Amino acid sequence: MKFTHYMPSRIFFGAGALDQIGKIGLPGKKALIVISAGKSMRQNGYLDRLIALLRQNGAEAVVFDKIQPNPVKSHVMEAAELARSAGCDFVIGLGGGSSIDSAKSIAVMAKNPGDYWDYVGGGSGKGQAVTNGALPIIAVTTTAGTGTEADPWTVITKEDTNEKIGYGNDHTFPLVSIVDPELMLSVPPHLTAYQGMDAFFHAAEGVIATCASPMGDLYALKSIETIARWLPVAVKDGSNQEARAQMAFANMLSGFVESISSCTSEHSLEHALSAYHPELPHGAGLTILSVAYFSFFLDRIPGHLYESMARAMGKDVDALPADQRPAAFITALKKLIAACGLDGLKMSDYGVRREEIPALAKNARDTMGGLFELDRYKLSFEDTVTIFEKAYR
Amino acid sequence: MKFTHYMPSRIFFGAGALDQIGKIGLPGKKALIVISAGKSMRQNGYLDRLIALLRQNGAEAVVFDKIQPNPVKSHVMEAAELARSAGCDFVIGLGGGSSIDSAKSIAVMAKNPGDYWDYVGGGSGKGQAVTNGALPIIAVTTTAGTGTEADPWTVITKEDTNEKIGYGNDHTFPLVSIVDPELMLSVPPHLTAYQGMDAFFHAAEGVIATCASPMGDLYALKSIETIARWLPVAVKDGSNQEARAQMAFANMLSGFVESISSCTSEHSLEHALSAYHPELPHGAGLTILSVAYFSFFLDRIPGHLYESMARAMGKDVDALPADQRPAAFITALKKLIAACGLDGLKMSDYGVRREEIPALAKNARDTMGGLFELDRYKLSFEDTVTIFEKAYR
Repeated sequence: MKFTHYMPSRIFFGAGALDQIGKIGLPGKKALIVISAGKSMRQNGYLDRLIALLRQNGAEAVVFDKIQPNPVKSHVMEAAELARSAGCDFVIGLGGGSSIDSAKSIAVMAKNPGDYWDYVGGGSGKGQAVTNGALPIIAVTTTAGTGTEADPWTVITKEDTNEKIGYGNDHTFPLVSIVDPELMLSVPPHLTAYQGMDAFFHAAEGVIATCASPMGDLYALKSIETIARWLPVAVKDGSNQEARAQMAFANMLSGFVESISSCTSEHSLEHALSAYHPELPHGAGLTILSVAYFSFFLDRIPGHLYESMARAMGKDVDALPADQRPAAFITALKKLIAACGLDGLKMSDYGVRREEIPALAKNARDTMGGLFELDRYKLSFEDTVTIFEKAYR
Repeated sequence: MKFTHYMPSRIFFGAGALDQIGKIGLPGKKALIVISAGKSMRQNGYLDRLIALLRQNGAEAVVFDKIQPNPVKSHVMEAAELARSAGCDFVIGLGGGSSIDSAKSIAVMAKNPGDYWDYVGGGSGKGQAVTNGALPIIAVTTTAGTGTEADPWTVITKEDTNEKIGYGNDHTFPLVSIVDPELMLSVPPHLTAYQGMDAFFHAAEGVIATCASPMGDLYALKSIETIARWLPVAVKDGSNQEARAQMAFANMLSGFVESISSCTSEHSLEHALSAYHPELPHGAGLTILSVAYFSFFLDRIPGHLYESMARAMGKDVDALPADQRPAAFITALKKLIAACGLDGLKMSDYGVRREEIPALAKNARDTMGGLFELDRYKLSFEDTVTIFEKAYR
């Protein structure tokens, strides 16, 4: 039992938590607000409400509104330049993971010279240390998906090389995070499902990673239990406030897992998929890969790991013969995917061709090889191809 | 479901974690090490090892070694003066709760003018804001009891007025905490039991407090489950490394509960007891009060709270008739107390006289009245006396 627990963000959780922005001691006088290129932050009134709360609390705001679902390096660099030229002294990510992740990367580049890829580790990143820290970051999450409000990680794609790489350090933890389930009521069913499954896999991978511990497992198994129970409800009825709150809670817990344990290579595989096919939502990509991925490890890692997750998902594991218990997790996973209406997802529907698989496997290992090191069974290149092949439809 | 999650300490957990002191970036060049007036930190070699690790990492150390089991304000003031005159730029609490709590209070007074009681809220404390923050604090815990390594709280007694009051703010979270179960192997059985029960009540009170939430409950119920299973083992065989690690884990989780939920009035009652009778260990005082305290609330607060704790303690609650389920917690509590050999504890053995009870009840309400506000059933003065009376032997 060895672990390091570090999750310094101050998280305000609950309906109405956004109002805290009008009350707390802000870390600066002028915010760069980072939102997506979509319309929802304006149409739902969240942007206006955030700006009004900041004003009430004595701070101005500048808006950068170009972030894509799979956010890209060029926008990080452009927004960091805007933050500098406009004199912003803190950054607020308002939206889903893409906006908050971008806010983290922008906060780094607003204070450090050169190119963002000078600091990213893995792939063609130079892995340099950030010497100037980062602007303070506030995360206002409007989805229950990435857990980025409760971890240091940001995932950005370098467009010209198709590298989608996670990055983070002590400076990229949000100073403050707002987790207000009322802001999540308007997420449509398919995105609710994709995001919820992303949170699920953050927890499930955290349980099977070599760096798992009773601390990470406490968060992960509660998240898995909560998602198995509440995600199908939230997908079916997005206006169900209890379901939204439970999913926001589970997602935050999965962020804690990311801070204390880690993802495994499933995330590397998915990053390759959505780096080449940016229209594929991350959570959909993970779901497409998941049954093949977890089935591959079924007889290759200790059975109690899958058993604990199956138990958390409500399976009466102890009623099964010992040799069938680990597989109960795969059964429960398939059931959850179907209950969320995701059992029809196919790579081919997102334009992925079977012939790409070797290139995808290579990209996964080249750009996000570090996560393969955290697998309990070390995947070869051929194993990686096999998982993609089995997941392909 | 509303809560604020804030626990920014970086916690290194596991056997050998003390070695981190030789590796991490230290927050200063000269530490004030705060230890108890007892001999154990020197006899066990912990102090020498800590000083050697600091030296290896480029830092000097000055030692303050007068802390009593129930730490007092005069020592806080004396040690703060020493920190200033010796030019210490960080403070390390090495030992149990008394040394770490003192380190926190010393860190405040090393940077702020006046008297410690100018800042304490409650009782005769003036509740002034600290304007200069505090020196960085490192906690090295050698017991599994107070959870102070994972919360901002410090409990100090003002000797002349018998006020034992908890205090804390954002500056009194440890910057770094070392939770190394190997440092706990030498704690004798009776202290292991008292400390473990303290951790138990931090969790149990956190569940019944009005500010309880699913977040605090996640920590609290895991702590309760772990203590019910492992404390009797650690008391029986202090060299059992698994039991020590599990108790260190549970205690840290109870610290999280203190950071996110709160104690209730049981702690106020105990503070009164040990303010007047400093030879009474805090955990023993809580244990003496506990059956009467929790029995008083049995029919006065929602039954599911006790049910959830009884379930965590291994009781097959669902097999009981609905109206008997909450009481299963009282049964489990009595069983735990007996399993730890504490069922013979008596107030009278520590010199507490029955005639003192009204004064104790008044002291509890005067000095730690805030915690009564977090009870789900508001205790009157007469109720408070009744609980003391029922607990008296």
